Amino acid sequence: MHRRYPTQNCSIARALEVVGERWSLLIVRDALLGVRRFDDFQASLDIATNVLSSRLRALCDEGILQRQPDAERAGRSEYVLTDKGRELAPTLITLMKWGDRHYSGPAGPPRLTLHSQCRGTVSLALECTSCGEPVGLDGLDLPLAAAD
Amino acid sequence: MHRRYPTQNCSIARALEVVGERWSLLIVRDALLGVRRFDDFQASLDIATNVLSSRLRALCDEGILQRQPDAERAGRSEYVLTDKGRELAPTLITLMKWGDRHYSGPAGPPRLTLHSQCRGTVSLALECTSCGEPVGLDGLDLPLAAAD
Repeated sequence: MHRRYPTQNCSIARALEVVGERWSLLIVRDALLGVRRFDDFQASLDIATNVLSSRLRALCDEGILQRQPDAERAGRSEYVLTDKGRELAPTLITLMKWGDRHYSGPAGPPRLTLHSQCRGTVSLALECTSCGEPVGLDGLDLPLAAAD
Repeated sequence: MHRRYPTQNCSIARALEVVGERWSLLIVRDALLGVRRFDDFQASLDIATNVLSSRLRALCDEGILQRQPDAERAGRSEYVLTDKGRELAPTLITLMKWGDRHYSGPAGPPRLTLHSQCRGTVSLALECTSCGEPVGLDGLDLPLAAAD
């Protein structure tokens, strides 16, 4: 079901093959927020059930979600994030910050991401693993994709 | 042309309305790498010209790309990122790191993002703007979307 970008030797293209389908990142967002049941995803996303089924299956096939028995409802399933799935949180937070910056209404960003220890706002910073300095957008040398 | 998520009061959903179309983030990636001309986007992405036209137009409409005369080719246009477009770089880098981690071949990640000053590898870190501490995935309180 995924569109492939076979000519692209690039981790961004690879990642978008997996999570670039419409709804996929919103399903991961909901799962990060604690949604686990099919009906709750459906209610949150207002998505056609056949599309939701297809997306959940694909996310399970890719090891982003894991399907398991729902302990409270015999015979039903629930979907929980794997470690690989949880590791999409920084991508979603970064995308959210961009959306906050450019598409917030007059009331400001809908929600903030908080540090669970001190309740401060979490931000994302680029930093250099070699010199340790913070890196601004103008300090990036950006060979995001391979040339070949 | 964009799919709307009108029930979603969420900056992730808003952002995906703008850059969630297939190819859009790959066009932004190429623009970050310095691609400016229609033919070069087309060659890089191996994308149908009508789809590329449509995506470039949408990205211009959203203020992510700006169309301007190509100084070297009379009568032709080129597409350059606006500040708003360049601000998508952290999202793409974060997505790339996830792709690197989970989809690199045996040769390792296709490319690294480098700090232009010292040539070190750039990484992304979550940090708390209040206490200043680095924040791990388990330190996130994640109300990514509004409840209403």
